[in-house]
Amino acid sequence: MSETAVSETVPVEAGAYRAAMARLASAVHLVTTDGPGGRAGFTASAVCSVTDAPPTLLVCVNRGSSAHAALSRNDSLCVNTLSAEQQPVAEAFAGGVPMAERFAAARWREEAGSAPVLAGALVAFRCRIASRASVGTHDVLFCEVTGLVGPDEADALVYADRGYHPLPRRRPPTAKSRPLRALKAV
Amino acid sequence: MSETAVSETVPVEAGAYRAAMARLASAVHLVTTDGPGGRAGFTASAVCSVTDAPPTLLVCVNRGSSAHAALSRNDSLCVNTLSAEQQPVAEAFAGGVPMAERFAAARWREEAGSAPVLAGALVAFRCRIASRASVGTHDVLFCEVTGLVGPDEADALVYADRGYHPLPRRRPPTAKSRPLRALKAV
Repeated sequence: MSETAVSETVPVEAGAYRAAMARLASAVHLVTTDGPGGRAGFTASAVCSVTDAPPTLLVCVNRGSSAHAALSRNDSLCVNTLSAEQQPVAEAFAGGVPMAERFAAARWREEAGSAPVLAGALVAFRCRIASRASVGTHDVLFCEVTGLVGPDEADALVYADRGYHPLPRRRPPTAKSRPLRALKAV
Repeated sequence: MSETAVSETVPVEAGAYRAAMARLASAVHLVTTDGPGGRAGFTASAVCSVTDAPPTLLVCVNRGSSAHAALSRNDSLCVNTLSAEQQPVAEAFAGGVPMAERFAAARWREEAGSAPVLAGALVAFRCRIASRASVGTHDVLFCEVTGLVGPDEADALVYADRGYHPLPRRRPPTAKSRPLRALKAV
């Protein structure tokens, strides 16, 4: 660890917080939605599992983002987790591009009125938005998982240090290799 | 993507959900706490940034876990994000080990009554628990970041496919290399 002193200034400066958060690796997701609020999608890293009873994940979305208006009126979304070869799709959905152009950059398994499922994703979680919480500039969407597509055996895409990295698929250990202790869900 | 059909069974089976979630890469954290509820810590992957205004992250914790009793009475915690060489610390805090033994497995920057800061972490976020939400079996703790330690330049530790992976530090691009488009916060 660097010799940086513990900063007890409240609040921590936003730029310092973002620089610290940039060191955290995460999966890369396309969050898509469709319904009365229209079709929208964005690249997201702020997604995590909450519980498996019932299967529930959460998605954080900026209330100022172009996708928020659609998400505020729709009751479903799909979290499409990207494979290593889908970096161009992540870039198309990362901002500044009109929605129609974003969706033209990838192939979809469309179903009328439901959140688009991305072809070639590592895994896709079809969700119903069960509840919402507002925290600062963002909404946290708690989503019950109503359907799964995959998982696929492709390599994963990881975002860290403000760039994309491929993460090769780990194969299950053979009988000869010592199994790693699994990270226990707490 | 595999040819797995979209499952619209509600609810999705918990084991299938866990297998799908296992494909998602994440950073690995030690969440520590101290205070009136006592000292406790656990390995976590369900941590994500919510907003930078004010700097806020969230942590999901199983209400049945050994750390939950302490967290329910304490008002502060520290999210210590692990570096690649800290896999043994992740394993010590991953469950089944008494709290005193867990803490003996690493070096700390102790401050009486506050959440222990792990020496050698990639980055540490000292937090005040601002609010809590119950979702199924878990509590979601919304935490305002009151202090930062780091970030450090070490390689990161990633958890994916039920195993640990080192993720080499990405250096800032040189003038000659084409910068990647950053993942825009939405």
